[in-house]
Amino acid sequence: MSTQNTGLRPTAGAASRPRELKQERAARTRDQILNAAADAFAGTGFPAVTILDVAELAGVTKGAVYFHFANKEALAVAVAEEFYALLPAIAETVRTEPIAPLDAVAELLIRTATAFRDNRMIQAGARLQIERHLVEAAMPTPFTEYTHLIADLLAQAQSDGQLPASSDPQAMARVVVAAFFGGQHISWVLHDRKDLAERVREIIDVILP
Amino acid sequence: MSTQNTGLRPTAGAASRPRELKQERAARTRDQILNAAADAFAGTGFPAVTILDVAELAGVTKGAVYFHFANKEALAVAVAEEFYALLPAIAETVRTEPIAPLDAVAELLIRTATAFRDNRMIQAGARLQIERHLVEAAMPTPFTEYTHLIADLLAQAQSDGQLPASSDPQAMARVVVAAFFGGQHISWVLHDRKDLAERVREIIDVILP
Repeated sequence: MSTQNTGLRPTAGAASRPRELKQERAARTRDQILNAAADAFAGTGFPAVTILDVAELAGVTKGAVYFHFANKEALAVAVAEEFYALLPAIAETVRTEPIAPLDAVAELLIRTATAFRDNRMIQAGARLQIERHLVEAAMPTPFTEYTHLIADLLAQAQSDGQLPASSDPQAMARVVVAAFFGGQHISWVLHDRKDLAERVREIIDVILP
Repeated sequence: MSTQNTGLRPTAGAASRPRELKQERAARTRDQILNAAADAFAGTGFPAVTILDVAELAGVTKGAVYFHFANKEALAVAVAEEFYALLPAIAETVRTEPIAPLDAVAELLIRTATAFRDNRMIQAGARLQIERHLVEAAMPTPFTEYTHLIADLLAQAQSDGQLPASSDPQAMARVVVAAFFGGQHISWVLHDRKDLAERVREIIDVILP
């Protein structure tokens, strides 16, 4: 949630900056709406959600929703974009760790799984991803950036001798992402994501040497 | 399509069996409707399909559809059941081959991929699977039977020494199924399933020794 409520409050000097305050308030309202939309999409799926549902969940008027988003499709695209921005943000937190590239892949998958389990924006994005054919708007291209991130780490692991020269980092990355995406979906359907960490650990053990 | 049109035609003796003929005709109509529903669900997704769409695609009246299926949910459940019956049927075709268990797993995945690419009932079942939360009916439990089939083959491979004693056939089967399901979904979204055979071959190469 890139522009999450930052806890900003009007301060002594704030009264002299009415324009900024208004913009802050607008940004905060937009965030509230986006989080409410994520909650609704994650909970009941795109087709069943109405703008009124989102307004009520956000505690704003329908007019306020329409001020920020032209329609339900625009809301879905915005939620999906947040989702696809969160994945590289998770990767960034792993990059700063002083660990070998292969361990970084494992760590990235585990942190992504935790986010899938706990973060409503990610759950909404994942659900919109599988419902994307029901959204009449151009949704962001899925999977490719995350796959590149993992392929890069696996290529580094190969250079460092952590992976045999015969392995194909691109193919391996595609299989890892397919298993992760399929695994989180199956975990959602069969066990409401309760076994997700365990399933992802399994993917790491079976696929990565 | 378990009760697919078998090419039966009224024969000389058939006129004396009016009841059977009527039953055959009813079964044929039901199949037509089920195939039309599969086509509609695969093409436009569960929420957008109407009973009228299915009737028109099947070339029957809405009344004929309602004679066989109480509502759209019942049609979705029937299509999903056909889908989950087709997967073990594919496994059965592999079991009769004189090949080692590990090769049988690879062969099963390749035949399943071909079916996902070519068979409309399977495409509909796979799409209903990801849209299952939008269907207000008890859908068949997914993945588990197919996972058991693969786990059995992998356990055999382990007994035969094709897999190391340290590997876990159950975990491996879950990862294979997750990768297959995720891979076919990604292939559908990014490339309209054109690269599915290649992606499944990759899963086999990366996961199976």
